[in-house]
Amino acid sequence: MADKQKTRITVDICGQTYTMVGPEQSDHMRRVASIVDEKMRDISSRNANLDSSKVAVLAAVNSVHDYLKLKEQFEQMEDQLKNLKG
Amino acid sequence: MADKQKTRITVDICGQTYTMVGPEQSDHMRRVASIVDEKMRDISSRNANLDSSKVAVLAAVNSVHDYLKLKEQFEQMEDQLKNLKG
Repeated sequence: MADKQKTRITVDICGQTYTMVGPEQSDHMRRVASIVDEKMRDISSRNANLDSSKVAVLAAVNSVHDYLKLKEQFEQMEDQLKNLKG
Repeated sequence: MADKQKTRITVDICGQTYTMVGPEQSDHMRRVASIVDEKMRDISSRNANLDSSKVAVLAAVNSVHDYLKLKEQFEQMEDQLKNLKG
C-alpha cells in the first residue's frame, strides 16, 4: 500500500549489522532478527568448524523446516474448521 | 524415538553440498533444501553485491518472518476452533 510507511531498522545478527526495511513494525523485525541470531549461535556452538555462510544456510534450512511443519498443522486445522462449519 | 530410522541425504544449496540428517522423510528434506536454494537465488539476484553469508542470513530472516506470520494465523484459527467447539 502506497500510504503505508516502511520501517527501517538496523539489527545485529551474529556480529554483523543488517538494515531491515519493510512494512512490518520494528518489534516484529527485531524479533525475527533475534530468532535468526539465536538459531545461528546454537548451530555454531554445536558445529565449531562451520563457516558463517554454512551456519546461516543451516539456520535457513531449520527455519523452512519449522515453517513447513507448522503449515501441515495449519492445513489440518483448516480442514477441521471447514468440517465444523459444515 | 530410538527405533525411528534417521534419513541421511546430500543436497545442493546455491552450489554448496550439505549433508542433512534427521527423522524426516527424504522428500521433505529435499523440499526444504529446494526452498532455501530458491530464496537465496532470489535474494542474490536482487542484491548482486551481497556475499553468500549475508544472502544466507537474509534467507533465514525471510523464513523466520514467514514462520511468525503463519504462527499468528495459526493461533487465530486455534481460537476460532476453540470457540466453535465451545
